[in-house]
Amino acid sequence: MAPDRTLRVALLGCGTVGAEMVRLLHEQSADLTARIGARVELAGIAVRRPGRDRGGLPVDPALFTTDALSLVKRDDVDVVVEVVGGIEPARGWLIEALRAGKSVVTANKALLAEDGAALHAAAAEGGADLYYEAAVAGAIPLLRPLRESLHGDTITRVTGIVNGTTNYILSAMDETGAGFAEALERATELGYAEADPTADIEGFDAAAKAAILASLAFHTRVTAADVYREGITDVSAADVASAAEQGCVIKLLCLAERSGDAVSVRVHPAMIPRSHPLAAVGDAFNAVFVEARAAGELMFYGRGAGGAPTASAVLGDLVAVGRHRLSGVRAAGESAYADLRVRPMGQASTRYHIRLDVADRPGVLATVANVFAAHDVSIGTVRQSGRGADAALVIVTHLAPDAALAATVAQLRELDIVRSVASVLRVEGS
Amino acid sequence: MAPDRTLRVALLGCGTVGAEMVRLLHEQSADLTARIGARVELAGIAVRRPGRDRGGLPVDPALFTTDALSLVKRDDVDVVVEVVGGIEPARGWLIEALRAGKSVVTANKALLAEDGAALHAAAAEGGADLYYEAAVAGAIPLLRPLRESLHGDTITRVTGIVNGTTNYILSAMDETGAGFAEALERATELGYAEADPTADIEGFDAAAKAAILASLAFHTRVTAADVYREGITDVSAADVASAAEQGCVIKLLCLAERSGDAVSVRVHPAMIPRSHPLAAVGDAFNAVFVEARAAGELMFYGRGAGGAPTASAVLGDLVAVGRHRLSGVRAAGESAYADLRVRPMGQASTRYHIRLDVADRPGVLATVANVFAAHDVSIGTVRQSGRGADAALVIVTHLAPDAALAATVAQLRELDIVRSVASVLRVEGS
Repeated sequence: MAPDRTLRVALLGCGTVGAEMVRLLHEQSADLTARIGARVELAGIAVRRPGRDRGGLPVDPALFTTDALSLVKRDDVDVVVEVVGGIEPARGWLIEALRAGKSVVTANKALLAEDGAALHAAAAEGGADLYYEAAVAGAIPLLRPLRESLHGDTITRVTGIVNGTTNYILSAMDETGAGFAEALERATELGYAEADPTADIEGFDAAAKAAILASLAFHTRVTAADVYREGITDVSAADVASAAEQGCVIKLLCLAERSGDAVSVRVHPAMIPRSHPLAAVGDAFNAVFVEARAAGELMFYGRGAGGAPTASAVLGDLVAVGRHRLSGVRAAGESAYADLRVRPMGQASTRYHIRLDVADRPGVLATVANVFAAHDVSIGTVRQSGRGADAALVIVTHLAPDAALAATVAQLRELDIVRSVASVLRVEGS
Repeated sequence: MAPDRTLRVALLGCGTVGAEMVRLLHEQSADLTARIGARVELAGIAVRRPGRDRGGLPVDPALFTTDALSLVKRDDVDVVVEVVGGIEPARGWLIEALRAGKSVVTANKALLAEDGAALHAAAAEGGADLYYEAAVAGAIPLLRPLRESLHGDTITRVTGIVNGTTNYILSAMDETGAGFAEALERATELGYAEADPTADIEGFDAAAKAAILASLAFHTRVTAADVYREGITDVSAADVASAAEQGCVIKLLCLAERSGDAVSVRVHPAMIPRSHPLAAVGDAFNAVFVEARAAGELMFYGRGAGGAPTASAVLGDLVAVGRHRLSGVRAAGESAYADLRVRPMGQASTRYHIRLDVADRPGVLATVANVFAAHDVSIGTVRQSGRGADAALVIVTHLAPDAALAATVAQLRELDIVRSVASVLRVEGS
């Protein structure tokens, strides 16, 4: 304890998370002093609009400024906390701070996923800490375990539910039988989806998080552009019902797998068995399932978003970098020493669940099976149901290259005896 | 990377976990060098019986010694890894190492739960790191998140399934309807229970882990002796069936709660709703559910035991302390600054589920309700079932001091109209 020491923090951004940060810093002031060994003081708060009412935040109004860059450059600032989001101007501020040896705590997943390498390079140059627990899965302590606890082990695969909005929508579709549009509308009413939900429902948000997770899990560099991405807008009530018949649920998964000197990173809806730990992750919760060679299966579960959970993660990082500064050290930098190749989606190894509406006549199964064989895709199970106009085949394949599976489906669509390909979904976790 | 630098490790113990450590150090040698920035070398391996066949471990036989203390004292040892277990002689070795400034990684939950304070004091004295991720919930990265990621937040409650043997037994009872003795026998056959299962089934193992978890979560000192403990030997097939009727499962929970300046730490079987994330934790898996003021609900899930998972956790710690040594720093010591009072079990706030076999005559419910009222215990729900000799009352209370609930049950047993108290279980998680 050294109550005469202070840690001076520049807060960039004062929206939901920033305001919550200000409140937590105020409320937990004594506890933070004890945990860090120094008093935390706000050096300034950079905002876009100075005149906006800050709802009675417990802070001196003189601390607000619209000049973030000058605030970052001030000599009396020890740590920069960024909760603004977006690529620019945040990137410029953080690189400036890190190069000058100021520790940075950020929740900015977009920036990390697009240009984490530049931030890490600036941190190395300035000998500064760069922490970003809040950037993936909100309050769930996840990056630190991946970065530190498991670094004596070899992670083979990470499977996550990292977007609360889509998980809320898919959970609602599973529970109520609603279609996508109806479930989205309900999510918007309840505040789980934004007015423009594109980033969530098209998988962009999950893809950014997948890039950060893959980089950490496999000690390499993966950017958002490397991530194969499909959203959930095409998931139908019939798909959800079809999954339920197989004892499965549909989740928007982010998957990062390592094989040999390559990683495969993808975001898409997939069926998983109800007995899988991820299947029980409901509402807007997040969870990340990690498979490691020695540790086996691990799962981390919690709230992925929201002002207070995100602020909690930021504050945890602030304590860590604060302690490092006071003891005159910094955390071991990230070691992106593996430099793995990113495997294209076509080469990823996946399984498909395919539902075909077919003509009810002899030889249909043989014809369909021949198409699979022609693409070297092995069939796991086939179920025939209905007669006449309702005749259907439900096929679940074994693992095969995604390109071979996609080509198989394309050729099935061309068959006369296939009236329609009613549902195509990847299957994971079994 | 400084491949010319080495980190010299003394390994104390070479049983299941120790042998797995030796194998992992050998197999992952290149990766470890990259992650730590130095080559890891075994300085020696202390064993009890030197002549025992080590099953072709990839290690020079000359490294084995029966003199652990001399090994610990050697000048060329940087880190001591202890996987022997038990209080003595492990305590002496580790205190010697820490005082001499050698970092310690240990999986010894019994020692930490009994005398963690002495180890932490020795670490502070020697300026050395003390890491023990493997001591609780095996491979699950749990202590580091509690110790570091959440230290900007306030944890209010920790609820864990931290003993794999009892979770296996209770899961089997729930799935098959088997009684305790039968499920234990099966667990023993499959190697999930030891020949003498006392430490597991009587809750001693869980109580040690509860003490460590509570100490970390609430920044205070709790020892195993402070923990209220009940095992699962009295859980009957009828209890499990009764829980199932209420939509619940029975789990052996460890609970640590903070209220005001006191903590309550307890281990006992309890009913939890099937919708609770902990209810889905099956087989021998472990999970810890954490509630924090800002972060909300978090859960950590994974394998709690086994050679490889435990070795993974030890290795993760080894990388951390190795990096600290090379950068000439140590982790922030534990700050047990709260010094909270341990509340006796009678003052813990709990809910009871009580099943009474009663006489089938008018006024029974009124008589029973009067007993609850006399102890100021509020009833949540009552269900009457059966007639004549099968007449039963199932009562679930609201929260009340455990002593008041226990006194209520004692008085119910004295009533003429109560033929027997068929089942008493605490209820959590709703």
